[in-house]
Amino acid sequence: MSFDLDAYLAERRRAVDAALERFLPAADTPPATVHEAMRYSVLAGGKRLRPILVIAGGEAVGGSMDAVMPTACAFELIHTYSLIHDDLPAMDDDDYRRGRLTSHKVFGEAIAILAGDALVTLAFALLAENASLDVVTEVAQAAGTFGMIGGQVVDIQSEGKSVDADTLEYIHSHKTAALIRAALRSGAILAGASPAALKAIGEAGSSLGLAFQIVDDILDVEGSLAELGKTAGSDRRKKKVTYPEHFGLEASRLKAKVLIEDAKATLAPLGPRAEPIRALADFIFQRRS
Amino acid sequence: MSFDLDAYLAERRRAVDAALERFLPAADTPPATVHEAMRYSVLAGGKRLRPILVIAGGEAVGGSMDAVMPTACAFELIHTYSLIHDDLPAMDDDDYRRGRLTSHKVFGEAIAILAGDALVTLAFALLAENASLDVVTEVAQAAGTFGMIGGQVVDIQSEGKSVDADTLEYIHSHKTAALIRAALRSGAILAGASPAALKAIGEAGSSLGLAFQIVDDILDVEGSLAELGKTAGSDRRKKKVTYPEHFGLEASRLKAKVLIEDAKATLAPLGPRAEPIRALADFIFQRRS
Repeated sequence: MSFDLDAYLAERRRAVDAALERFLPAADTPPATVHEAMRYSVLAGGKRLRPILVIAGGEAVGGSMDAVMPTACAFELIHTYSLIHDDLPAMDDDDYRRGRLTSHKVFGEAIAILAGDALVTLAFALLAENASLDVVTEVAQAAGTFGMIGGQVVDIQSEGKSVDADTLEYIHSHKTAALIRAALRSGAILAGASPAALKAIGEAGSSLGLAFQIVDDILDVEGSLAELGKTAGSDRRKKKVTYPEHFGLEASRLKAKVLIEDAKATLAPLGPRAEPIRALADFIFQRRS
Repeated sequence: MSFDLDAYLAERRRAVDAALERFLPAADTPPATVHEAMRYSVLAGGKRLRPILVIAGGEAVGGSMDAVMPTACAFELIHTYSLIHDDLPAMDDDDYRRGRLTSHKVFGEAIAILAGDALVTLAFALLAENASLDVVTEVAQAAGTFGMIGGQVVDIQSEGKSVDADTLEYIHSHKTAALIRAALRSGAILAGASPAALKAIGEAGSSLGLAFQIVDDILDVEGSLAELGKTAGSDRRKKKVTYPEHFGLEASRLKAKVLIEDAKATLAPLGPRAEPIRALADFIFQRRS
């Protein structure tokens, strides 16, 4: 029987959504405004890709979904905080995200900044619940200036400039891929992965993360407001550097495909337990939003 | 021989400054701009009160300075990140801090936001170095929406409004006291404090933290640009709620004094090892900046 990715994703997305609902303070808990803002952005209905990668990373070495759930949700909170801050007027100045008004358009800039701050802080509280200092370190590094924030800094500084392929790869591998790699690795660490398995999963994560961002760039060029939930072509309008801009659409698609196949090959020694990650790899390549 | 607070503070401040210098990425490490911005704000020469409280909290139960240093520095990073974000145009809109231009005036808003984000992230990496999940949890709670961020949210929402004494105390105990309490407690946790000692240190921390903020309010009313390094009277100009505004200067001084004495009384069972915390309590009351 072939792996049913749709059922796998739907089941895990439901479990992640329920856990996020539980971990986030209620919207009427004082100070209510910031809790409302946190919930507005987190519960806006994303794909939950990063939490599901944490789960799949654990499952690939025999772990269970429930055992990694606080860490899985922590990744969604960190991802969401980065989106809230990226969307601010001083940053990318976006009015829409996932088809809804961005946080600062609804709650004002001050609350949006604080909601982002609160999400990253809550994320570390959740990581502590899973009782692995290695995972706290993993996430702090992947989300910091040598990871996600570093990519965002260079991305902002490259706007409107012509950059070389190295800079483009730096931005993508740091801004997006670092956290995706850390998600897979964190699940595997919590499930007690061997050093060899952890290495393979980390390498697959780097490839998947970079492929994810390239596909994102392609979708941005191709997409429409309805499909993407944010103003399509916004990267080009803001003169962001993108893969398609630099290498063309066809070469970008090929690059993403090669990365996906690399990731799957790297996972071969893990056997059938890594099937969810392989299916997620295909999903990342084929997704339309 | 009486306790020499000046020597105690100077020695610990030097050690903390040296450790911060070591823990922060070099200003020319890529992406350089954000590292430069992080260093600009952290190494602007504060009192290092929070790190010294971590150290004193450890010493009060027999711990050593070196053993808690990563955690001590993490508190300074979290304090600094909160200042950078508080100073943003969307928040308190301050141009000066500690006598220098604020981060966003020097580096622009985008980098200031990201430098703050990077500091809180690095703080959790440092906490993980000290290998106590209890401390990670302690800090995440004290810095989150039920602590520092919660206080900041209510502070912003109270601007220009007349608020009652309960709200004023909520703001102060959350915005400032929560982190000060957590600093003392974290040092004590790392040094293996007994439950009774930890309880006493935590209670002293709550009193000290509230006293610290009341003194801050008094200094803001009384201060001058030269003394405070930020535009004095800025709280009043922005119609922030303050203790002196609400209760008058004399009653505010008395309230702070009572809190300081409460803290010292709470620490009595800890004996001479808590002498640094007692001296810090007096320092908090008597400081002129």
